[in-house]
Amino acid sequence: MASAIDHEMMSRALQLARKGLFTTMPNPRVGCVIMKDGVIVGEGFHERSGEPHAEVYALKMAGDKAEGATAYVTLEPCSHFGKTPPCAEALIKAKVARVVAAMEDPNPLVSGRGMKMLSKAGIEVESGVLEAEARALNPGFIKKMVSNQPYVRLKLAMSLDGRTAMESGESQWITGPDARSEVQKLRAQSCAVISGVGSILQDNASLTVRAEELGLPNAQTLAQRQPLRVVLDSSLQTPVDAKVITGPGQVLMVCTDQAGQDKQAKLEAAGAEVVKLNGSNGQVDLKELMTLLSSKGCQEVLLETGATLAGAAVNEALVDELIVFMAPTLMGAAARPLLKLPFQSMSEKLDLNVSDIRAIGNDWKITATFKDKTD
Amino acid sequence: MASAIDHEMMSRALQLARKGLFTTMPNPRVGCVIMKDGVIVGEGFHERSGEPHAEVYALKMAGDKAEGATAYVTLEPCSHFGKTPPCAEALIKAKVARVVAAMEDPNPLVSGRGMKMLSKAGIEVESGVLEAEARALNPGFIKKMVSNQPYVRLKLAMSLDGRTAMESGESQWITGPDARSEVQKLRAQSCAVISGVGSILQDNASLTVRAEELGLPNAQTLAQRQPLRVVLDSSLQTPVDAKVITGPGQVLMVCTDQAGQDKQAKLEAAGAEVVKLNGSNGQVDLKELMTLLSSKGCQEVLLETGATLAGAAVNEALVDELIVFMAPTLMGAAARPLLKLPFQSMSEKLDLNVSDIRAIGNDWKITATFKDKTD
Repeated sequence: MASAIDHEMMSRALQLARKGLFTTMPNPRVGCVIMKDGVIVGEGFHERSGEPHAEVYALKMAGDKAEGATAYVTLEPCSHFGKTPPCAEALIKAKVARVVAAMEDPNPLVSGRGMKMLSKAGIEVESGVLEAEARALNPGFIKKMVSNQPYVRLKLAMSLDGRTAMESGESQWITGPDARSEVQKLRAQSCAVISGVGSILQDNASLTVRAEELGLPNAQTLAQRQPLRVVLDSSLQTPVDAKVITGPGQVLMVCTDQAGQDKQAKLEAAGAEVVKLNGSNGQVDLKELMTLLSSKGCQEVLLETGATLAGAAVNEALVDELIVFMAPTLMGAAARPLLKLPFQSMSEKLDLNVSDIRAIGNDWKITATFKDKTD
Repeated sequence: MASAIDHEMMSRALQLARKGLFTTMPNPRVGCVIMKDGVIVGEGFHERSGEPHAEVYALKMAGDKAEGATAYVTLEPCSHFGKTPPCAEALIKAKVARVVAAMEDPNPLVSGRGMKMLSKAGIEVESGVLEAEARALNPGFIKKMVSNQPYVRLKLAMSLDGRTAMESGESQWITGPDARSEVQKLRAQSCAVISGVGSILQDNASLTVRAEELGLPNAQTLAQRQPLRVVLDSSLQTPVDAKVITGPGQVLMVCTDQAGQDKQAKLEAAGAEVVKLNGSNGQVDLKELMTLLSSKGCQEVLLETGATLAGAAVNEALVDELIVFMAPTLMGAAARPLLKLPFQSMSEKLDLNVSDIRAIGNDWKITATFKDKTD
């Protein structure tokens, strides 16, 4: 049975894990605390693929004090040789007395193996302490392991009356600088950012992470890693000098049969990868896109698209999480809508679980998931 | 200078004043606390027009202990004979040493007189303690005194994507029972509830306060007072057997020249008051309506209308407070909009101050005022 001190220690381990929010991908964010006689003797978190796991740092800090201690890990210790030796083995060697994990490994092929290895070595094991919080840390990693599909966040910005731009398309500055900084953080924690060609043609959107807008102490370092920028552009209308092409990081142009060979060649010459997918009505097949992104190792992806693409993604049940920035303003019924959904009857409406509403500067950030998906 | 204890006592007086939220109209909600040697010796609040004021109850409870005490009142004590004798006089007679008011009387003709009367009698006076909170208690009373216009709340219910009903008009149960109970409370604290004929024809809305939906311990008593139900019905299409006509309380039908004499006679025979106002494009002049309601003693009025009327009221700057119930659901871009506003450019958008967002059951209640009005 988990005690209050177990929860407190796991809470600290989760806090440590969060330090890897922007850097661990494609690895999961993991934190570890080693406690002996009620005192923390070791702490660590995983920072970057190829570098040691959380347990290794924590054990190193604990040194001899690890013997007889309790280790708290936000994810079941690995039992296999990857880029680093198995952590379960390291815990056994260090002679810890007890290992508490927040959750088991989500990979069905290895889930439970680490705990079993520890248990066989005579270590007391327990899992499931603050599991929901641990799962929320790695939604992309978990979804990838379970279904080989990326975890998709749809980011939208709207007025209080659900509008994104005037009828003419005029849309600058609906939300304030704090909300835009929050979007930068979402990009920075994503493996890929997806946009439609509309944003590229209309706003010359770069889709990059910009250190000066990130609002984090280590922004310069974080901005060195750019998410894969993905542009859905059926007929390849994106000009070769668009910011999304010339900016830092990799860009993936996704087109359909509509695209001409010459356009593809020009974009490739400008450094973009161009991929042809199936499509209909001038729109790329979004399911195929997600499978493609997963095959490229993308776990958390961010959709930053207009009402048509966003609506299609929602309607095809490809969106896991909705993040709506709501500005305290009214734009009126002629202005552009949030989501194009083909609903005619109340029975079709999509019910949500709103998990969080918080003020971000003068705007409000609403986070929600879909009821039929999670209930 | 107001001390911490002054704030504490005024906070209690405000709490008492709130007990009159649903009953004092057209009088203001007022609370009073009498404190002697750090101990509350008297408390009271105004409950109903014609009954004693807050100060009278508090002085009665305090008895002889009022001598040398401090009286905290949420509104400057009255200096004139109304339905009851002036409270300033009662405080002088009771020989209180000090009177602290949260705000002065908003009526420009008498503002400051009560405090002056007390001061002349040698009583120490102070005002402005928790003034913002005191003002928020009586927005209708204050607006009426200052501008002779009612304080208008616009209540709307929408999906997260800003939609109120499907394209067909289908709209039942967007928000849950807790939100509907909250709307009942808004009606119960309003002098009048205004709706368009559309809601009457489509939903046969009664616009009444219903004890069973109010969710308050004294619901049965409160529901005995019904707000004036106002239906904007240019050509008097409302059938005489509509719930709004047959239900409890007074109903005011507002029409224009378009209405036939026979229809008016029938509605009057059914118990409704019918008033003809100017109008254009089949819509009643809303400014004229507000002046009419003010002349009828209405202070807080609640607009419960569709997107066209609501948009017109907002656009004519007649709305003081926006209350939006947001249901956690998506209805899509074909569904009906929240507000029809004739905006074409971002420069026209109406910026809001969101003062409160809170969960009401599964829904969210957003309270906002207009920036250009309050800043």
